[in-house]
Amino acid sequence: MPGEFRTHRRVEWADTDQAGIVHFARFFVFMEAAEHAFWRSLGLSVHSQRDGDTISWPRLVAECEYFRPVAFEDILDIHLHLDKQGEKSLSLCFDFHCRGEHIAQGRLKIACCVCNPGEAIRAIPIPDFIARKLAAHP
Amino acid sequence: MPGEFRTHRRVEWADTDQAGIVHFARFFVFMEAAEHAFWRSLGLSVHSQRDGDTISWPRLVAECEYFRPVAFEDILDIHLHLDKQGEKSLSLCFDFHCRGEHIAQGRLKIACCVCNPGEAIRAIPIPDFIARKLAAHP
Amino acid sequence: MPGEFRTHRRVEWADTDQAGIVHFARFFVFMEAAEHAFWRSLGLSVHSQRDGDTISWPRLVAECEYFRPVAFEDILDIHLHLDKQGEKSLSLCFDFHCRGEHIAQGRLKIACCVCNPGEAIRAIPIPDFIARKLAAHP
Amino acid sequence: MPGEFRTHRRVEWADTDQAGIVHFARFFVFMEAAEHAFWRSLGLSVHSQRDGDTISWPRLVAECEYFRPVAFEDILDIHLHLDKQGEKSLSLCFDFHCRGEHIAQGRLKIACCVCNPGEAIRAIPIPDFIARKLAAHP
Repeated sequence: MPGEFRTHRRVEWADTDQAGIVHFARFFVFMEAAEHAFWRSLGLSVHSQRDGDTISWPRLVAECEYFRPVAFEDILDIHLHLDKQGEKSLSLCFDFHCRGEHIAQGRLKIACCVCNPGEAIRAIPIPDFIARKLAAHP
Repeated sequence: MPGEFRTHRRVEWADTDQAGIVHFARFFVFMEAAEHAFWRSLGLSVHSQRDGDTISWPRLVAECEYFRPVAFEDILDIHLHLDKQGEKSLSLCFDFHCRGEHIAQGRLKIACCVCNPGEAIRAIPIPDFIARKLAAHP
Repeated sequence: MPGEFRTHRRVEWADTDQAGIVHFARFFVFMEAAEHAFWRSLGLSVHSQRDGDTISWPRLVAECEYFRPVAFEDILDIHLHLDKQGEKSLSLCFDFHCRGEHIAQGRLKIACCVCNPGEAIRAIPIPDFIARKLAAHP
Repeated sequence: MPGEFRTHRRVEWADTDQAGIVHFARFFVFMEAAEHAFWRSLGLSVHSQRDGDTISWPRLVAECEYFRPVAFEDILDIHLHLDKQGEKSLSLCFDFHCRGEHIAQGRLKIACCVCNPGEAIRAIPIPDFIARKLAAHP
């Protein structure tokens, strides 16, 4: 699938809570880290500089559906794919698997923005240098 | 509105990230803490014991939509209301306000479950002692 | 004692780990939040502006000794006192109590610094407007 | 050095705070994760079962000295060595480097304990099956 990217991470002790499983809010940190690894795999970063502007991707919507719990030291396989590419936003879908089971599915909708210090954040069309990298992704 | 509950919290330094605003995943921790304060306001806890069973509320779905950023030491007003009450689940809606602005809106769908150590988690109809407290909530 | 300040906080679910107790690293977040409440009690913030400079307090040393575990929904009483005031640094001591027991004792050594964006951080003598507030603290 | 172990991790966005650097409390999570990787490198886990007992390592003391800030996406090299081996405890030292610079030095003192659910935690002499692995470590 175009835009598919795979990574994994091992569940750490600090990810768990008293129920003995990964705390549900940690999945959002896992999604974000997978997204940032995706940007790096394109030779980019979630933050980039262009003509003196800092371009970044504030979150508009974050959601996750949980199917099964995951435990300390489990290894999560995370598959990211580009669900939708708008003019000024991206919708990223994340599937979490562990030992052959589908653990959770999440989604981030992020907006392409100029985020200069001391200025109001403003959404912009996804710049060409980013759009080209996304299009070239296998 | 039935089931409405209000609380607030001050944004802490550790809630912020490099963008100088509250990290998006923290809103899920804020929702959970508001939910637990809601249970306490009913004279309950998110965990309860009944006939030797531990009853708790695993998360099925978590989502949040972000409208505006919030900064260090800002005070978030959090309004929780019971969006839907199913036979075995609850849907809780959270509105975040700060200085008169609507910051974010989140939702947690949680399942009423027996969570005994060493046993598989199983969903159960919301027990009467909990349902009565929810119904009596102003 | 000069510089003593008291606050408290309730242990949240996300503070716990799989051992069913507060994760040890959370005590450092609790100390920092207590420190920031202390600054507010002086009419200051951990960040202040003076003559166009941002003055803040980077951490030099953080340490904590743990005596007893604390559980979900426990209320921690936190006593902060100013252990030592150097020319350019402060040493803050934190005692954590819960239900009459001494839970933990921590310490932060923090340096008074100019932290302007885009400049190297540099330590400075504690400015008079801060030193006066510290001296006036009961 | 006996007991030296090396690992690394990349700084994630959620590790940073508003100062644009890694939040000081995150170093304790990094130490713990390095310690757990060390246990795995010995063919063990921080939790083990023996004769029906759960053996684990509660933290007695945690401390960290900070020399330089670290930024988003920096890679931290973490060297762990066994500083002291007592009858019932271990003292682990952690050195953090990044791009050739010494970033921070931390220490965890941990106690070997039986941590059975529903029982009081009790310190025990480090069992032979663990002591042998520690001794055999290069």
